[in-house]
Amino acid sequence: MILDNINFPKDLKGLSGVELEQLCEEIRKALIEKMSREGGHIGSNLGVIEMTVALHFVFDCPHDKVVFDVSHQTYSHKLLTGRKEFLQPGSKISGFSNFKESAYDIFSLGHTSSSISLACGLMKARAVKGGKENIIAIIGDGALSGGLAYEGLNNVIEQGGNAIIIINDNEMSIAENKGGIYKNLSLLRKMNGKCQQNLFRDLGFKYYYLEKGNDVKSLVKLFQKVINCDKPTILHIHTIKGKGLDFAERDKEVWHRSGAFTLDGQQLQANNFSYSTFTGDYLLSKMREDKNVVTIISGTPSVISFDKEKRQSAGEQFVDVGICEPHAVAFASAVAKAGAKSVYCVYSSFIQRSYDQISQEVCLNESGATILLFGGGVYGYNDSSHLGFFDIALLSNIPNLLYLSPSSFEEYQNMLQQAVSTQHKPLVIRVPTIYRRKICAEMFDMNKPHYVVEHFGKRVALLGLGNFYWLANEIYQDLKEKNIDATLINPLFVGIDEGVLSMLAKSHKVVVTIEDGIIEGGFGQKIVSYLGKFDIKVLNYGIKKEFCDRFTVENILRDNGLVKENIVTQILKEL
Amino acid sequence: MILDNINFPKDLKGLSGVELEQLCEEIRKALIEKMSREGGHIGSNLGVIEMTVALHFVFDCPHDKVVFDVSHQTYSHKLLTGRKEFLQPGSKISGFSNFKESAYDIFSLGHTSSSISLACGLMKARAVKGGKENIIAIIGDGALSGGLAYEGLNNVIEQGGNAIIIINDNEMSIAENKGGIYKNLSLLRKMNGKCQQNLFRDLGFKYYYLEKGNDVKSLVKLFQKVINCDKPTILHIHTIKGKGLDFAERDKEVWHRSGAFTLDGQQLQANNFSYSTFTGDYLLSKMREDKNVVTIISGTPSVISFDKEKRQSAGEQFVDVGICEPHAVAFASAVAKAGAKSVYCVYSSFIQRSYDQISQEVCLNESGATILLFGGGVYGYNDSSHLGFFDIALLSNIPNLLYLSPSSFEEYQNMLQQAVSTQHKPLVIRVPTIYRRKICAEMFDMNKPHYVVEHFGKRVALLGLGNFYWLANEIYQDLKEKNIDATLINPLFVGIDEGVLSMLAKSHKVVVTIEDGIIEGGFGQKIVSYLGKFDIKVLNYGIKKEFCDRFTVENILRDNGLVKENIVTQILKEL
Repeated sequence: MILDNINFPKDLKGLSGVELEQLCEEIRKALIEKMSREGGHIGSNLGVIEMTVALHFVFDCPHDKVVFDVSHQTYSHKLLTGRKEFLQPGSKISGFSNFKESAYDIFSLGHTSSSISLACGLMKARAVKGGKENIIAIIGDGALSGGLAYEGLNNVIEQGGNAIIIINDNEMSIAENKGGIYKNLSLLRKMNGKCQQNLFRDLGFKYYYLEKGNDVKSLVKLFQKVINCDKPTILHIHTIKGKGLDFAERDKEVWHRSGAFTLDGQQLQANNFSYSTFTGDYLLSKMREDKNVVTIISGTPSVISFDKEKRQSAGEQFVDVGICEPHAVAFASAVAKAGAKSVYCVYSSFIQRSYDQISQEVCLNESGATILLFGGGVYGYNDSSHLGFFDIALLSNIPNLLYLSPSSFEEYQNMLQQAVSTQHKPLVIRVPTIYRRKICAEMFDMNKPHYVVEHFGKRVALLGLGNFYWLANEIYQDLKEKNIDATLINPLFVGIDEGVLSMLAKSHKVVVTIEDGIIEGGFGQKIVSYLGKFDIKVLNYGIKKEFCDRFTVENILRDNGLVKENIVTQILKEL
Repeated sequence: MILDNINFPKDLKGLSGVELEQLCEEIRKALIEKMSREGGHIGSNLGVIEMTVALHFVFDCPHDKVVFDVSHQTYSHKLLTGRKEFLQPGSKISGFSNFKESAYDIFSLGHTSSSISLACGLMKARAVKGGKENIIAIIGDGALSGGLAYEGLNNVIEQGGNAIIIINDNEMSIAENKGGIYKNLSLLRKMNGKCQQNLFRDLGFKYYYLEKGNDVKSLVKLFQKVINCDKPTILHIHTIKGKGLDFAERDKEVWHRSGAFTLDGQQLQANNFSYSTFTGDYLLSKMREDKNVVTIISGTPSVISFDKEKRQSAGEQFVDVGICEPHAVAFASAVAKAGAKSVYCVYSSFIQRSYDQISQEVCLNESGATILLFGGGVYGYNDSSHLGFFDIALLSNIPNLLYLSPSSFEEYQNMLQQAVSTQHKPLVIRVPTIYRRKICAEMFDMNKPHYVVEHFGKRVALLGLGNFYWLANEIYQDLKEKNIDATLINPLFVGIDEGVLSMLAKSHKVVVTIEDGIIEGGFGQKIVSYLGKFDIKVLNYGIKKEFCDRFTVENILRDNGLVKENIVTQILKEL
C-alpha cells in the first residue's frame, strides 16, 4: 500500500505518475469503506481525490495556501496532511476543514461560496507582508450560484497577482445546477473550454479547461503549468461526482450526502417519521389544489424530501433557485407581494445568510412570505459550521416578523395549513425536530398569536418553547409528584403574551423559560425583560452561545443544565 | 410648464419628443432646486431623469411593474406618479420608493442589489397567476458588485420569459467602480456594446447597448423595441451621473449624496467634529507606521472621509471592495488570519448584510478582524430602510465576538488604538455618534473587558451604554439633587461583568439599563436575564423594534420614554 507511507504532502513528492494513480485508488477504497460505515459527503469527496493528490504533489502546502469552499470535500486532503486517523471508527477528525486541527486547514468552513473572498484576503495579507506563496481556492459543486462567490471573482481581479481559482465542475449542485452561470459552464465543457462565451475571461481571468478532471497525471501537468502564475487564473476542471461508485455516479443527487450504506448501494436509514417528507407532501398537495402556491428551496431538495418526481409534479410552482439563500428570500418576498403565496424551505443554519433580505425585502415590506426552518435547535446538525440554535435570537428581533415554534405535529400541521391558506404577516415557522403528538388545545390563530396555558397552577410557571415544551412538561409532572401544582405553558410563538404574563406576575413566584436555542437574544430574555419590574424571579434555560462542535444531544443538554433533575432542583431552591 | 400638467404616467402619453425633452429639463430644474435646499442623492437622480420619463412614456405602470434598485434614484419617478408634493419644503414624500406611499412603488427599498431578485419573484407570481405585464428592474450606480445582483441575474435566466433589466451604467459606484464586472462594462461602453466579451450574453441574456442614455428620444425608441419581449433582456444604458449640474458631473463622488448646497457648488455643512474624519486620519497614520494594517471599506469612502488623496496615500493598504459587504467581511477575516491587521469600516445599517460572514468566517474562525460600525443608534440615518439601531441585537449574540460601545471620544480613541496595535478576538467597535469628551477612568483592556463603575452608590444602579451613557449620567445628577446616591456604570462592552452585577444584586434594589438600540435581543436583556434569579428589579430602556421612518431624534427618544424625567419618575416609583 502506497498510502501506508504517505502522511504529509512531502511524502508524495517522489512518486511516479503510476504510483499517484495507485494512491488515488487506495484513497478511494479507504474513503468508500469509511463512508459506507459512517456516512458522509459521498459524491464530492469521490470526485476530488485526484485533484487533491495532484494539488499536494505540485504545490507546497501549508506554505502555499489552499481554501476548500464549504470544505465538505476535504476527506482526501485530511489523509494527505497528517490525519489518516480520519479513517478510524470514532475518529475525532472533522468532516470539514478545521483550523484547530491542522496548519493545512487555514479556515473552519461549512457555509457555501466564501472561498474566493477568503483567498482575496490572503492575497492582500501576502501583498502587505511581501510573501510569494501560491493562493488557491477550490470551488464548485453548486457553490457558484452564491453571490458571495461572484463578489470574490469580481474582486480577485481587482487585487491582481497570483491566485488560482479551481472550478470543480461536477455538473451538479446538490440537485441539478441552476442558472445562467451553469449554462455557460455547460457550453464551455461542450466546447472543451474553447468558446467565445466565457464569463471568466470577460471578468478578466486567464482561463484553462481540463476535461479529464479525474486523471491525476493531467491534473499534475495543469497545476505545474500555473504554479507561481502572476495573474488571477481560473482552472475549470471537469470532475465526476461520485467517481468510482457506480450507483453514486448514476444518481448524483441521492449520493451527495448519505448515512451509512451497503456496497451495493442500499442506504441504511431508520424509517422514522420525517417532518421533511410530511411538509413536502403537504406542499405538493396544496400546490395541486391552488395554482397560487409557490414552494422555493435553495439547492437542498432534501429539506422537504423533494425528489425528481415530486419536483416534476409540482411544475412551475416549485422553484429551486440554487444555493443562494439571499436571492431565495427576496424572491419569496416578491412572489407574496405580487399576490401569490410563497413558502421558502431552508435549514436553520443557512437562514442566517439571508438576514438582510428577511429584514428589508420581507419585513420592512410587510410581505406575507412564509419561511419554514428545518433542523433548528440541538437536534439538527452538530458541526460547528452548521449549528441550528442561533435562529431564534437572529430572527425574533426583526420587526413585523411572526416567529412560530410549534411543539407537536398537530400544532405544526395547523400552522402550516394557515400559512398557505390565509393572509398573514411575514412568517417563520420553526419545524419541530422531535416527533411528538398533541392535539391542539384550541385553534391557534396566527393573526392573534397567544400562549396556550396547558395547565394553570400556582407559584411556579414553566414556559417550554417548541421542542422543549416536552421538557417543561416532564418538569411539570415531576413537580406534581412533589405536590407542587405548577403552571405549564406552551408559548407557540416567540414574543410577549401580555395577558398571560401579567397574570403570572401577579400570582406566581418563579417563572422558568426553556428554549431550544441560545439564551442570549432569545425567547426567555424577552420574558424576563417584560417581568423585570415585578417581584418575580425568572430563570432562563437554553444553550450557551458557543460554536460547539460534533456534540451529542445528551451532552449538550447536560452541559447546559437542560435536564429535568437540574431544573427541578433550581426551582425548589427558589420557592 | 409641461410639468404642471403632468400628474400621472397617462398624462405623458400624448407628448411629442420635443415636449418630453422639455419636461426632462423642467424636472431637472425642479429637482436641483429641491436638492440644493434640502440635500439628497444628487448624482443618481440627475442621471436618470430621461430614463424615468421614457419609462413612464412607454410602459404602462403600475400594470407593468418596475423595481428601482436601492431606490435612491426615484425622485423623478415620484413626480410622475402622483407625488409632486415631493418638491415642497417639509414634504412627507420619502426619498426612497415606499409601498405605503403609492401603488407605483411595489417595494420599500434602501439596501443595494436586490432589484433583480425581486423581479424574479414578480415573474414567478406572473407565471402562476397568468399575467402578461412587463417586469423591469433598474440597477446600476455600483449595485452590480453586490452578489445578490448576480444571484438575480443567474436566476432570471432560469425563470425565462419577459424581464427587462436596465443596467444604469453611470461609470460609478459611490466612488470609482471596482472589480471585474466593471472592466467588462467599460469595454462594452468603449465598443458601443459590440464586443465578444459580454458577460450578460454569456449568462444567456439578450443585450442592447445605448450610449446616449440621457437622450429621451433614444430611450423611448429602445424601450419601444423591447416592450413585451419574451426573453430576459439587458438594456445597458450609459448615463451621466449628476447630469446638468456641472460641478456634480465633474466630481461625481462628492455629489453622490450631499446636504444643502449653493448653485455654484458650495456644500452648506456645519463644521462639527467628525468621527469619520478622525477615524480615517488615524487609520491613515497607522498605515504609514505599520505596513501590516489594512483598511477595508465597501463602496462608501464617506464612512471614514477617505477622499481620493487619502486613498492614494494609503496605497495598497487601503481596499475599497465595492458595494459587497459579505465579501468585505470574509476578506477582512482572511487578512487577519494570515497575520496582517484588518479594519473594516461600515455603516451600522449595512453590516446586517454580512451576518453569516461575521458568524462563520470571522467568529467561528477566531479571526482578529476589527469592524468599526458608524452611524449606529438613533443619531444615524432615519429612513426606515437605513436604521442603525438593530446592530447590538444582531451582533452581540454571536459567539466569540467582542462588541465594544465607547461613550466618549477618549474611550473610542483608546479602543481604536488597541484594535490596530494588539492581538485580539473578533471585534466590533460601535463608533459613538455624539461627540462627548471624557478621560478614561482607567485603561480599558479589550482582552479583559469590564464595566467602568463611575460612581458606586446605593439602591439604584444606572447602566448607560455608549451614546446613552450621557443620559444615564443626567439621570444620576438628577437623582443626586433628589438626595438619591445612585450607582453610575459605563459598561463599555455588550456583555456580562459578573463581578459588578453580582455586587449590584447583593446591594441594590433597582437596576436600569439604557441603550441606543432595540431592547429585544440587546444589552439590557442580557443584564436582566443574569439578574433574573435575584431579588432585584430591572428596567430595560431602549428602542422598540419597529421600522420607524424619518423620525426626529427628539421624537423617537420621547416615544420610547428615553427622557430623563420619565426614567427618573419610573425609578422613584420602584424605590
